[in-house]
Amino acid sequence: MRAYDIIYKKREGFKLSKEEIDFLIQEYTRGQIPDYQMSAWAMAVFFKGMDSEETSHLTMAMAKSGDIIDLSEIRGIKVDKHSSGGVGDTTTLVLAPLVAAAGIPVAKMSGRGLGHTGGTIDKLESIPGFKTELDRRDFINIVNSTGVAVAGQTGNLTPADKKLYSLRDVTATVDSIPLIASSIMSKKIAGGADGIVLDVKTGRGAFMENLEDARKLARAMVEIGRQVQRKTIAVITDMNQPLGYAVGNALEVKEAIDTLGGHGPEDLEELCLTLGANMLVIGEKATDFEEGYNKLKDLIETGKALEKFKEFIKAQKGNPDVVDNKELLPRANNIIAVKANNDGYVQQIDAREIGLTVMSLGGGREKKGDRIDPAVGIVLKKKMGDKVNKDELLAEIHINDTTNSEEVKERVQKAIIIGQEKNKRNKLIYEIIE
Amino acid sequence: MRAYDIIYKKREGFKLSKEEIDFLIQEYTRGQIPDYQMSAWAMAVFFKGMDSEETSHLTMAMAKSGDIIDLSEIRGIKVDKHSSGGVGDTTTLVLAPLVAAAGIPVAKMSGRGLGHTGGTIDKLESIPGFKTELDRRDFINIVNSTGVAVAGQTGNLTPADKKLYSLRDVTATVDSIPLIASSIMSKKIAGGADGIVLDVKTGRGAFMENLEDARKLARAMVEIGRQVQRKTIAVITDMNQPLGYAVGNALEVKEAIDTLGGHGPEDLEELCLTLGANMLVIGEKATDFEEGYNKLKDLIETGKALEKFKEFIKAQKGNPDVVDNKELLPRANNIIAVKANNDGYVQQIDAREIGLTVMSLGGGREKKGDRIDPAVGIVLKKKMGDKVNKDELLAEIHINDTTNSEEVKERVQKAIIIGQEKNKRNKLIYEIIE
Repeated sequence: MRAYDIIYKKREGFKLSKEEIDFLIQEYTRGQIPDYQMSAWAMAVFFKGMDSEETSHLTMAMAKSGDIIDLSEIRGIKVDKHSSGGVGDTTTLVLAPLVAAAGIPVAKMSGRGLGHTGGTIDKLESIPGFKTELDRRDFINIVNSTGVAVAGQTGNLTPADKKLYSLRDVTATVDSIPLIASSIMSKKIAGGADGIVLDVKTGRGAFMENLEDARKLARAMVEIGRQVQRKTIAVITDMNQPLGYAVGNALEVKEAIDTLGGHGPEDLEELCLTLGANMLVIGEKATDFEEGYNKLKDLIETGKALEKFKEFIKAQKGNPDVVDNKELLPRANNIIAVKANNDGYVQQIDAREIGLTVMSLGGGREKKGDRIDPAVGIVLKKKMGDKVNKDELLAEIHINDTTNSEEVKERVQKAIIIGQEKNKRNKLIYEIIE
Repeated sequence: MRAYDIIYKKREGFKLSKEEIDFLIQEYTRGQIPDYQMSAWAMAVFFKGMDSEETSHLTMAMAKSGDIIDLSEIRGIKVDKHSSGGVGDTTTLVLAPLVAAAGIPVAKMSGRGLGHTGGTIDKLESIPGFKTELDRRDFINIVNSTGVAVAGQTGNLTPADKKLYSLRDVTATVDSIPLIASSIMSKKIAGGADGIVLDVKTGRGAFMENLEDARKLARAMVEIGRQVQRKTIAVITDMNQPLGYAVGNALEVKEAIDTLGGHGPEDLEELCLTLGANMLVIGEKATDFEEGYNKLKDLIETGKALEKFKEFIKAQKGNPDVVDNKELLPRANNIIAVKANNDGYVQQIDAREIGLTVMSLGGGREKKGDRIDPAVGIVLKKKMGDKVNKDELLAEIHINDTTNSEEVKERVQKAIIIGQEKNKRNKLIYEIIE
């Protein structure tokens, strides 16, 4: 078998066999197929696509290119959730204890990653004492006893995907549905998931800017799930403004606590209930969406969700008192108010720009190894469609290094666009695909 | 400027600017743009194409990526000829002295290259004493005094094309018309040509297997010529069987002598007259094709063409007596007869297979630096459409190492396909595009 022939075949629009895809991924991972052949192949896939069988073969080939986490010692159906890149995404922090409280085992290995704010691991580490370095044994024991554990990723997961993604990133071959779908699904499968709920975001701040593309990506992933026997449901959600109000590590933990207690932002709660209900259906803890939804709502109202969060924190050596006393979380030295320059309605909140601003405050990582400041971030006070008066508070900036505070303030002000048109908030949940 | 943006722009089907193409080629040549970006770009060009302006910019960018041969000291319009890859292509050997005799200065720098038989340089070197290593001064003096010189290429011509071609060769991006056209034209321009006649071959043994593709390539090159002010004419010719009868270095020199003397193979003479007539038109030595054609025919009939060949050989220190006594050329130790197995008509002669067989005899180079045996080769005795009787001679194999002679014989026999259908030879000249 030769890489050349596989590139040629795809270029001519033919379907690749499992053997060809396995060969391509294995040899690329081993360094036997050079980047320049792989990028030509990726460009051919961009133009000619791949059908669901090819995409499934690619997913499994990438999943098998490195370690696959074995969660077989954990009882029950392991349902994982994936959000396809948004800003201020607090859903994992809420969902982990919430669905665990409903009996779904949550065994999450998470990377630190780059981005506007830290990963879930970084957010949890803003809780004093919280340990995310767990050995395999402890990790499994905690899930079996508490129902939920989140640990830093160890081992070599999906090296083929890492290598291919870096290459696609510099060769204008990122935005190909089969390549995106297989990349996401391969990571979830390598992470040991039996079932997967996907939160596919669409809109200005998201990877898939329009609904039709989001729908295609969602369908492609659900179809992969079907083919590789991992029950998968995708929820297409709006990302035209940040989810919730908080962007920043400790600030998002606070917001997660609020939400688990039943007084969080409406959109965040609604999204968590929707994603969670689907997780319950896949995990066979609810017969249908509505039953799942109500069950989770009940767990919030009765305080059981919050109780589970405490257990979770305690099991990982964090201080569970933060739940009742949020002042125990890291706090920035300064809070700067951002006020409206004129009357009107919030037309738009540039989620990406808000995210980048938080990164500039030290709340996210620009490059691998950067330290994260857990205290900094932005708390919005208004959302799309809200009426505002001149000088009314739009947002608060939680900041430690105030050297460039005027600049930061201006940046946030510009990201919250106020106009005269009386507008409505976007719908939060567009569609559920299964 | 970033390579990424240029790839993306082409992928989306936009037209690239001169600045973008210059940047891409310059930085790729300097090693600042990696192969993996260039191959992704080439694949995007495969799918989205380039218009004639982009193709012309690419041609000039590649021509300027290395040395450009300065022929300004040579009087007259320098018209070069290019044949797009065939088997047993003796046209350059015939055309160089022929058009020189008509007053067109022929100043050809030629590479050794790989292939079924050697390049023009190798063929000429089968003439005893013939020197192809000429310094610049000698080269120019010989052209100005004799009218024709052929020297081995020195200097660093079109490094961008060399690098890009090698990359395309392994990434399934060779067969893109704008990339082929710019590759060929950039080399001719770097070679110092004022005008160009292109012999675009089509058929089983050729690069462009069908007439429509050959036409597209021809049109693309003629258009580049127009845009970069090098008058260009393309002749589309048949390559469904080898041209002439001889395939092999010294054997082709013999055939060239026959043709210049007026008793060569009909097809070879016809092609040389056609290409040559167009060269005369471009070089302003004939007002139209017919005048050029008749002028060349006259030079053959009066012996002036052959006389020019002698002068040419002498000026480059070869033994001009080979022209009158072909026995002075290298001869193989053995000649093996290939006979017909049954009665019928020659349906097909697999030019590629004949070429590969000659290479296996030592007549061509498989890899750089291989030595060539000038004496070996194959002389066909029949061509497409000829009637043959059982046991009649089909071809002669000129061979030195007879270890595998039975195998070679069988291979040649199989390449000449005899059937019952009474067929006609293909047309030789399909079309002239200018």
